[in-house]
Amino acid sequence: MPTIVVHVMPKPEILDPQGKAVGAALPRLGFEGFASVRQGKRFELTVDGDVTQELLAQARDAAETMLSNPVIEDVVAVEVVD
Amino acid sequence: MPTIVVHVMPKPEILDPQGKAVGAALPRLGFEGFASVRQGKRFELTVDGDVTQELLAQARDAAETMLSNPVIEDVVAVEVVD
Repeated sequence: MPTIVVHVMPKPEILDPQGKAVGAALPRLGFEGFASVRQGKRFELTVDGDVTQELLAQARDAAETMLSNPVIEDVVAVEVVD
Repeated sequence: MPTIVVHVMPKPEILDPQGKAVGAALPRLGFEGFASVRQGKRFELTVDGDVTQELLAQARDAAETMLSNPVIEDVVAVEVVD
């Protein structure tokens, strides 16, 4: 079944405590060489049938209004896989 | 700066209450045509300098051992952007 994947990340100017915690833990566990970490969300919307342009527009709309909080998050990509 | 993006999703056999909640809310808000929703995580690891094969291997290792819980989650992709 085709899937629409929506990628949501905290806006660059917004503090991301989860990402900061992960970023601080990496070197403690021996993973060196990463400057910073940001944590966001990935949604997989499974589609019955074909992904029409209309459905993709709906997914983009849902991504902006429901899957992300536009005050603190950006929808960085909406893509079709499969 | 180059970024390594790690995509983590709940395993297919694991219940995903967040995704279920989003999936149930979509039609109530007028978004029709989506069969189901799963919610996972997206990590952006910023790298100082070049992404070497060694660093990418470290990122894969961190993805499997720290960024995901292998009991309930799958690392679906580790990719370099920028």
